[in-house]
Amino acid sequence: MSPTVPQGFRLAGVHAGIKRNPQKPDLTLVVSERPATAAGVYTQNLVFAAPVKLDRARTPCEQIRAVIINSGNANACTGDRGDRDAARMAELAAAACDARAEQALVLSTGVIGEFLPMEKIEAGIAAARQKLAGDEAALATAAQGMMTTDTRHKLVGRRLKLAAGEVQLTGMAKGAAMIGPRMATMLGLILTDAAIAPAVAQQALSAAVEDSFNCISVDGHMSTNDTVLLVANGAAGMPALTGADLETFRNALAEVCGELARAIAADGEGATHLVVIDVRGCATRQAAHRVAKTVAESPLVKTAIAGADPNWGRFVSAAGYSGVSFDPRRVGLEVNGFQLYQAGAPAVFDAAAVSKSIREQYETRVVLQFGEGDAAVRFWTTDLTAEYVRLNADYHT
Amino acid sequence: MSPTVPQGFRLAGVHAGIKRNPQKPDLTLVVSERPATAAGVYTQNLVFAAPVKLDRARTPCEQIRAVIINSGNANACTGDRGDRDAARMAELAAAACDARAEQALVLSTGVIGEFLPMEKIEAGIAAARQKLAGDEAALATAAQGMMTTDTRHKLVGRRLKLAAGEVQLTGMAKGAAMIGPRMATMLGLILTDAAIAPAVAQQALSAAVEDSFNCISVDGHMSTNDTVLLVANGAAGMPALTGADLETFRNALAEVCGELARAIAADGEGATHLVVIDVRGCATRQAAHRVAKTVAESPLVKTAIAGADPNWGRFVSAAGYSGVSFDPRRVGLEVNGFQLYQAGAPAVFDAAAVSKSIREQYETRVVLQFGEGDAAVRFWTTDLTAEYVRLNADYHT
Repeated sequence: MSPTVPQGFRLAGVHAGIKRNPQKPDLTLVVSERPATAAGVYTQNLVFAAPVKLDRARTPCEQIRAVIINSGNANACTGDRGDRDAARMAELAAAACDARAEQALVLSTGVIGEFLPMEKIEAGIAAARQKLAGDEAALATAAQGMMTTDTRHKLVGRRLKLAAGEVQLTGMAKGAAMIGPRMATMLGLILTDAAIAPAVAQQALSAAVEDSFNCISVDGHMSTNDTVLLVANGAAGMPALTGADLETFRNALAEVCGELARAIAADGEGATHLVVIDVRGCATRQAAHRVAKTVAESPLVKTAIAGADPNWGRFVSAAGYSGVSFDPRRVGLEVNGFQLYQAGAPAVFDAAAVSKSIREQYETRVVLQFGEGDAAVRFWTTDLTAEYVRLNADYHT
Repeated sequence: MSPTVPQGFRLAGVHAGIKRNPQKPDLTLVVSERPATAAGVYTQNLVFAAPVKLDRARTPCEQIRAVIINSGNANACTGDRGDRDAARMAELAAAACDARAEQALVLSTGVIGEFLPMEKIEAGIAAARQKLAGDEAALATAAQGMMTTDTRHKLVGRRLKLAAGEVQLTGMAKGAAMIGPRMATMLGLILTDAAIAPAVAQQALSAAVEDSFNCISVDGHMSTNDTVLLVANGAAGMPALTGADLETFRNALAEVCGELARAIAADGEGATHLVVIDVRGCATRQAAHRVAKTVAESPLVKTAIAGADPNWGRFVSAAGYSGVSFDPRRVGLEVNGFQLYQAGAPAVFDAAAVSKSIREQYETRVVLQFGEGDAAVRFWTTDLTAEYVRLNADYHT
């Protein structure tokens, strides 16, 4: 079931002509009827795109009226002209809802190193303005307008009961490839009609991202454009979140980010399996994250899952080069509930049965157990298929 | 032209039955007529194989008479029984040349987590003993006996003129997959009839490995078995290397390791391109190595080369997430002599011509230039093809 649009927001996705295929929306305009709190988490890549630079300078704040999003062009590595184009996009989007230029944020995704077709974007914003609506159809086209090679749009929502009434929390995201952890991986936009102070919103978003978007990887390649925004306009008419209500909101935000992150991993380019890696029993969360990331990004682990091969040596040896210190004699590994490795030695298992379970299930569940402490992390990745290679060998030229 | 066997060494490669295909040698015995200096560099993986444990404990030393090598089985993750099997292999190899058990070293490569077929290995060592020879045919079968999915054996030699006469330096190696840097990647065995003190040999080998085997990557997956050994028996009858002779030897050793490393990258599983990445203008060698490794291991960079796609955004953005600090406005990128990116901005170039040059040449030359200092590193990798995925999705079960 599609989530609803939080009160006080209207959205539209249109085809502006940035992408060639006229069936595909490539521009999304989101407006808030009133100034909204906005918080952002951005790529940690030193080479970051113009829209990232613009949004980073403008968040957290409590004055945002519009978010303008385009796909098909990342406006990254485009120098001063890229900065001017991002600023112009913000100005046009703000004007579409009679706001000041600095009241808009910008998200871009697509090819790196090409200049934005600004005439198409200007016309597209004008067209989107005419189509702004607060219904589910508008929400769907808005989510589609941010897609690149995603095979489906990603929407997640929660209805929260707070002390003074109900608020809505609705998020959209796009992923596909150039997805690596330790950052806000990809584009994400989370809207709510709850009221939140900027610093509180920023803290809640940063925390939610840490266990969600920073725990996925498709190919380990950190993008220039990764951005997750939280926009809270308070249109539900309740006081700014505090106490138990804030806790309820934070939990829901973490869930929404987690579901969106998982949807991105599940829609990784060429993927035939979603892989859920639980790393447990580490000394610190950082150690658990590092092991999980190393295992998740090993091409040999990823191809083993594509081939439904219970080749546990690849998992255990990847953990061994993660840079995390552990006693190999205490390591255990489970795949889909089968114990493959225990106390640092191969377990007796039915390889054909494990292989069958990997082949027949879309989701592969991996549990790596260390005897070093209580820290754990859950990480999502995909398998690596020939289709990923085909898509990325043929994408640009 | 095949190199010659250094004086005082005899070798043989035989089919012992560890691999199924009877055409493929899977066991190599190398003996030295006199006790030889031996030095080793080993995987940094916490999960290391039994033969690595054995060799690490025995090197550097000056008493080695035999090296026994098997392919088809890594003897890794095999616990105490694996340790006993490795010790028994050493004992059998030593006995084959009337040496003491501790005078032998062991190299294994192949599937992880299966016990060695010790009866086949015992029979194989006996068979190899009968075939020991010092000619080029014996050298070739010895090099073949260490191969897994390598498509060709790898032999490199140098004839060195020293003050007191000539010595021979001959190396063999195997690679294919599970090839990542920051270790002695793979198996390598370098023989010489020069005389060297153990500490000097160890220092020379460690230095040579740093710029060769530690600067290649096929898939970034660090193996449990990586080992490079240098065995120097002094059979050329010259005094132990010092001064200018030692310098000549060290340079030749670096060249031999470099050529073998390059041959491993060139024979990476499924590879259609050898990629040579020069990172220049960094503040430290460590920074340059980290950038090179990050770019070399990005699946998006590797698929771009497979697709002959001058998609420079993938190279530049990979550098940006390497963790190395630099000013993006001073970054430059050349591919096959074409300037694609300069002073942090796209250069004007003929994309069709760049694409053609990548497609038509086996070797792709990448130069990444930073304006941060004088440190540089050369790194070798491969492209990523659907064939790599096919090989590794189907390897085990």
